[in-house]
Amino acid sequence: MQRVRRLLSRRSVRRSDGMFVAEGAKVLQVALELGAEVESVYLAPEATGAVVALAEAAHQQGARVFDLGPGVLERVAGTVSPQPLLAVVRTPAASTDVLHHARFVVVCVDVRDPGNAGTLVRSAAAAGADAVVCAAGTADPFNPKTVRASAGAVLRLPVLQDLEADVALEMLGAAGLRRVGAVPAGGHRYGEVDWVAPCAVVLGNEAAGLDPRILALLDDTVTIPMARQVDSLNVSMAGTVLCFEVARQRSNLRAMDRTRAAGGQQGYGVPGAEREMRPW
Amino acid sequence: MQRVRRLLSRRSVRRSDGMFVAEGAKVLQVALELGAEVESVYLAPEATGAVVALAEAAHQQGARVFDLGPGVLERVAGTVSPQPLLAVVRTPAASTDVLHHARFVVVCVDVRDPGNAGTLVRSAAAAGADAVVCAAGTADPFNPKTVRASAGAVLRLPVLQDLEADVALEMLGAAGLRRVGAVPAGGHRYGEVDWVAPCAVVLGNEAAGLDPRILALLDDTVTIPMARQVDSLNVSMAGTVLCFEVARQRSNLRAMDRTRAAGGQQGYGVPGAEREMRPW
Repeated sequence: MQRVRRLLSRRSVRRSDGMFVAEGAKVLQVALELGAEVESVYLAPEATGAVVALAEAAHQQGARVFDLGPGVLERVAGTVSPQPLLAVVRTPAASTDVLHHARFVVVCVDVRDPGNAGTLVRSAAAAGADAVVCAAGTADPFNPKTVRASAGAVLRLPVLQDLEADVALEMLGAAGLRRVGAVPAGGHRYGEVDWVAPCAVVLGNEAAGLDPRILALLDDTVTIPMARQVDSLNVSMAGTVLCFEVARQRSNLRAMDRTRAAGGQQGYGVPGAEREMRPW
Repeated sequence: MQRVRRLLSRRSVRRSDGMFVAEGAKVLQVALELGAEVESVYLAPEATGAVVALAEAAHQQGARVFDLGPGVLERVAGTVSPQPLLAVVRTPAASTDVLHHARFVVVCVDVRDPGNAGTLVRSAAAAGADAVVCAAGTADPFNPKTVRASAGAVLRLPVLQDLEADVALEMLGAAGLRRVGAVPAGGHRYGEVDWVAPCAVVLGNEAAGLDPRILALLDDTVTIPMARQVDSLNVSMAGTVLCFEVARQRSNLRAMDRTRAAGGQQGYGVPGAEREMRPW
């Protein structure tokens, strides 16, 4: 349990061991579904039948399972109402190669709160992003709080965590993605922007937003118009709105493509060629 | 301070006194901006110059200001890292009258987590909703955690907190709003639905979603399509996505109206008449 405690509390240990701790049945279930390597599972005496069955499934995939005495998990987890299960899971490999062919990437720059970072990873995955960059300065995506807020989505898509923001933005630009930053005021209205072409949604710090040094590296900025004098949304809500606008526009395009392919609507150019240009 | 503690911890005291506690400078600032009645302000010794200046502004609007000794506020607030300011603020009046002329309402049914309820109120306000209904079973919108998550948005629009969900839905239907529930699967794609006509976005419980009894009272259901086998978003993210789709469609319509009114694009009917039909 000493190791689990260190993996929970120390990013350096997570990095050197290449492992992280999944708290709760939900994240372990995602790990098993996706075939992630589960090294070990720790069960509190309060674990219910469904949770025990999940640990059994992990065992069948090669994990060691340990039953803990009363109160042991609570002392290790250090949260107020811990889940009755912890699992040590291998951190999925993620290479910058993914950026070269990506059509939708979310870049977090100095997003400090693990809850926000996790929520953004969850939205990015659900909206069909190819990768998330948690640039240096952002909360560790494999911090237990981030993993929990992501509902296990940190396992669903490549999450890059070592790049400096400027390096990531340069790579994304070279790969042909439009780099679009979210700003609280003065950007283009996000609903009037074309999100179908390859793009990176760039989100900044909770208090300070995007640094001028980063803004200078972007191709465009967008703002979410707001009513009732509300001056801002928090970064995870703003990022969620932008991610789903990307998905909405691309999904509408696919629906139009299907209509055209079925001969339902002609006269908009060669359907095949257009689909090839926009393979998402 | 006994009273503040009771207002923080007891919904019944908040209801009978018609007051709630705003924690932190942000919420007090919103209260002062909007002319809400601030009864009293309590300052911890750690309060910085800007926070003290805000208390002074409250004093000029009639609030009593109290300086607390070291550690007093921490004991009352009961959070890990409390804000150095508490204010007792009058709960804004909210009447069901607002529903009769509303064009966009958010209805929370059994949204239990105060953080989710507060986030939904914040998104609803920012997206231009006319009101939020926190139907019986939903977290108290004036719970300190809800108020904090709303960033003070509970003061920006009418928040109704005494209606049963079925009564609220009946009133909204009678007022001509389409009542649209968010469901994790099987609803219409939310991006292909018309949100310009008057509507109510109905959101359900974190674990169980919308009860069949409630679903039976709705006009339509929508689903947010998701990639990468993500099975759901949490209710505050889903609600945020839907609220901003309503705002986006209506804002695009206004932009089109402006274009037509300026003579930029003709042939879509009488612009004035259409604006009258959709005054949002």
